[in-house]
Amino acid sequence: MAAKRVLILGGGFAGVYAAQRLEKVLRPDEAKIQLVNQENYLVYQPMLPEVISGSIGITDIVSPIRHLCPRTQLIMREVEAIDLARKVVTVSPGFRPRQLELPYDYLVIALGGVTNFYGMPGMIEHGKPFRTLADALALRNHLIQVLEEADVETDPVEQQKLLTFVVAGGGFSGVELIAELNDFVTSVKSSYGNLRNAKPRCVLVHPKDHILPEMDQQLALFAEKILGERGVEILANDRVTAATSEKAVLKSGKEIPCKTMASTVPAAVPAVLQKLECQKDKGRLLANTRMELAGFEGQVWTVGDCAAATTVAGNPVPPTAQHATRAAELVADNIVAAIRGGQAREFAFEGLGKLASLGHYSAIAEIMGVRVSGFLAWVLWRGIYLMKMPGLNRKVRIGLDWLVALLFPPDLVQIKAASEAGIVRQHFDAGETVFHQGDLGDNVYIIEKGQCAVLRGDDHLADLGAGDYFGEMAVLGNVSRNATVRAVTATDVLLIPRGDFHKLKTSVPAFGAVFEDLAKARQSSNEQRD
Amino acid sequence: MAAKRVLILGGGFAGVYAAQRLEKVLRPDEAKIQLVNQENYLVYQPMLPEVISGSIGITDIVSPIRHLCPRTQLIMREVEAIDLARKVVTVSPGFRPRQLELPYDYLVIALGGVTNFYGMPGMIEHGKPFRTLADALALRNHLIQVLEEADVETDPVEQQKLLTFVVAGGGFSGVELIAELNDFVTSVKSSYGNLRNAKPRCVLVHPKDHILPEMDQQLALFAEKILGERGVEILANDRVTAATSEKAVLKSGKEIPCKTMASTVPAAVPAVLQKLECQKDKGRLLANTRMELAGFEGQVWTVGDCAAATTVAGNPVPPTAQHATRAAELVADNIVAAIRGGQAREFAFEGLGKLASLGHYSAIAEIMGVRVSGFLAWVLWRGIYLMKMPGLNRKVRIGLDWLVALLFPPDLVQIKAASEAGIVRQHFDAGETVFHQGDLGDNVYIIEKGQCAVLRGDDHLADLGAGDYFGEMAVLGNVSRNATVRAVTATDVLLIPRGDFHKLKTSVPAFGAVFEDLAKARQSSNEQRD
Repeated sequence: MAAKRVLILGGGFAGVYAAQRLEKVLRPDEAKIQLVNQENYLVYQPMLPEVISGSIGITDIVSPIRHLCPRTQLIMREVEAIDLARKVVTVSPGFRPRQLELPYDYLVIALGGVTNFYGMPGMIEHGKPFRTLADALALRNHLIQVLEEADVETDPVEQQKLLTFVVAGGGFSGVELIAELNDFVTSVKSSYGNLRNAKPRCVLVHPKDHILPEMDQQLALFAEKILGERGVEILANDRVTAATSEKAVLKSGKEIPCKTMASTVPAAVPAVLQKLECQKDKGRLLANTRMELAGFEGQVWTVGDCAAATTVAGNPVPPTAQHATRAAELVADNIVAAIRGGQAREFAFEGLGKLASLGHYSAIAEIMGVRVSGFLAWVLWRGIYLMKMPGLNRKVRIGLDWLVALLFPPDLVQIKAASEAGIVRQHFDAGETVFHQGDLGDNVYIIEKGQCAVLRGDDHLADLGAGDYFGEMAVLGNVSRNATVRAVTATDVLLIPRGDFHKLKTSVPAFGAVFEDLAKARQSSNEQRD
Repeated sequence: MAAKRVLILGGGFAGVYAAQRLEKVLRPDEAKIQLVNQENYLVYQPMLPEVISGSIGITDIVSPIRHLCPRTQLIMREVEAIDLARKVVTVSPGFRPRQLELPYDYLVIALGGVTNFYGMPGMIEHGKPFRTLADALALRNHLIQVLEEADVETDPVEQQKLLTFVVAGGGFSGVELIAELNDFVTSVKSSYGNLRNAKPRCVLVHPKDHILPEMDQQLALFAEKILGERGVEILANDRVTAATSEKAVLKSGKEIPCKTMASTVPAAVPAVLQKLECQKDKGRLLANTRMELAGFEGQVWTVGDCAAATTVAGNPVPPTAQHATRAAELVADNIVAAIRGGQAREFAFEGLGKLASLGHYSAIAEIMGVRVSGFLAWVLWRGIYLMKMPGLNRKVRIGLDWLVALLFPPDLVQIKAASEAGIVRQHFDAGETVFHQGDLGDNVYIIEKGQCAVLRGDDHLADLGAGDYFGEMAVLGNVSRNATVRAVTATDVLLIPRGDFHKLKTSVPAFGAVFEDLAKARQSSNEQRD
């Protein structure tokens, strides 16, 4: 009998635990196991906020999948299409621009979730998601950047804006993030000569009455008290609806001037699953209590954040690591049963407890009915999560990291690995300034939606609408902006950086001509005016 | 008397050591010290190759400047212009698009060097510089990417290309890099199921007879022997002259098919110093034995890799950390003498010795005339460089990192922080294929220089030259390439990624029209042909 092909999509807790269990139970001649993941590592989500303060080394928070499941073939590509009828998965091209097709006998879909800013203007450009290691690194670098800028900034209003940090969503990750962020900013500001007396503002925006709705209310109130004492503002019954480069806009109409707006909500399933034709529940793939995908029983299983399943007792399975790992092992056992013949198991796990770190030697915990808060809960949090971290290697490294973090102040190193983003979209709210007269001309703008006014001193020079270009004069002439442009209505613009603009202008003459004609026309109308 | 303004440009060894010495000697009321650096950390160059294997934590190799010189105001910006007559330095804008002007009484120019690929076609796109922390991280990520791809690749020729690594330059950093790279690839390949029996190829290209020309020849020969035994190929009397995405081209005419081409040569001074009007020696700023910039004595000092100076004995000062730190302290003392009145010192340091790590418990050393090689030299290397690492914090962290690295295999985690680069230039050598028929259409190409042929099977469909566009049909129609394009002569193209292309097409109709007209014309000529 030929070895069966088991294909696992996703390398989070669910995917990796399923692969590990399959490796343990199945002989190599029984099955060939493949796992597709965009990264070659598993992210240990519970400790992700600690990347912010650098108390855990950047690479210690993740664990190489090749070490965790050595017998599984890891394919470090993106899943582009799933064909349930043909039993084939297509993954993205690598160095050579050819897609790869992976046929399977048994499929596990464990692709997790993605951050979804749909319908929230400006969030794609200015909201910082917090889900992957790259997100956490980008947020850390941004924090250090605003601190460095705040130290140089002489305008107190601008400085306060740089020192205001907003986190949307008061669930586990939102609470842990704002706690870590507040600790970090408070403790490192003494390293900045001009910030020693500054008052950073950390704001947590939550749509319900109280944060941590999954926790016992007494513990949630304790968490609110602790965070409040450390200076975190909690805005209950409100939500972030839009963001610009200058502020966060809330549903209540409140506006918070800030340069940092992180979001831990809302999540959606990845695009490849959104277009998958199968039964769904609020967008997630519908699974039965054996974690089989409805309609594809015995062939396809789904597990983790992308799946909607209930336990035997009828309770929905929450998107936590403790559930994902156990459901993954059940899926592996059920695949073994399908290969060898045997009885499939049903999911009956109802959770062991809940933990949330509040940073600074404090946490809250609810374990098998017992509620703990404060230092003891913090020790529990660290102990349990260190124990659960896969691999001895990582356990040792994190233990040492924590030890070193107790001895030395947090780190200020900014890892600027990302280069500038090229052509991007940007959102401005009504009344916001796109650029000021006298600014440097770094970008050319094209209005996609909305209306802008061109102003010089008290003069209203022109109105611009969808399809209009502006900003080309400063970029073409390499001089500073000769006017201010302000959004009159909510406006979306396309922004072409100077370097890209010049490359295109040289190589596509028709492109350059559009802007040179425009610049000439504006120049002559300016001269007539003067 | 008002406090004097001392401005230091650059945060390498030279800049940081000068600031530290000034902080120690001068009272706050005597001088205000400012330091401009693009990063908020000092890179500890000697250990940079260890980022490749991950044996030292990514942030442990660098040290925050704010912790090293707490009384100095750090300005994390880029130096854009130096006006020696007006005594003003202009730095790049931050979040607000306004430049900052920094006036000074005393100036220290310690901006180091930059990698310079001028006149080496294809190196900007395909050569990987190795100088900054970002360079080291990018190289590490690229290495892991090629290993992951090689594991999936079924064509043995392509796989060998993915597993070939070329380093240009056999000086200290080139030798240490190839040694580290070879160790890393050799030890991690066992984690890749399909690479266990593969033979990675590591090549060091060096322009002279023997590597490490700064070292005693006997030690250099020992280093060549050790590297050779580990499988590193050394190509002497040759140099890399061009690179494409498929190969490195050498001066001798040899071609090495590879996907990885790292370069540790040649260096130039940063652009802002290239345009500075003052006396120079081979591009570097000319300094006297008191490290004063020729023509600006008593006002401007220059030190480190960007300076050309000689010792009192008349020997050129080499670009090493031991010289830079001592020259920086001398500069600080001479600034103190200028402020307080007093005698300036002259530079007489002739070096203590030379060390080069060969990885894998081996090194060579020449210390105060004594030559050591092998394990003892390796222990010396580690001991001396750990001692010299600034800050107890970093010493402890690196010590622990080394300890952990002895216990566990090297790490495979790929930190993908950089996003795709947007519009870029790319170089193809005569005969190279730009894309193959059947490939996915991810980019539109514009020829800047050179000639290409469009081929389908055995048909020669068309010739394209400078100013011509191609590749638009697959991108517009979202289908795979319907022809192969090959460079006939050496060709430079501008490459617009699919996403950018569609954004521009929508927002700048004239831009879109150019390509749609072209696509239509080509479509109809194809139909006539068929």
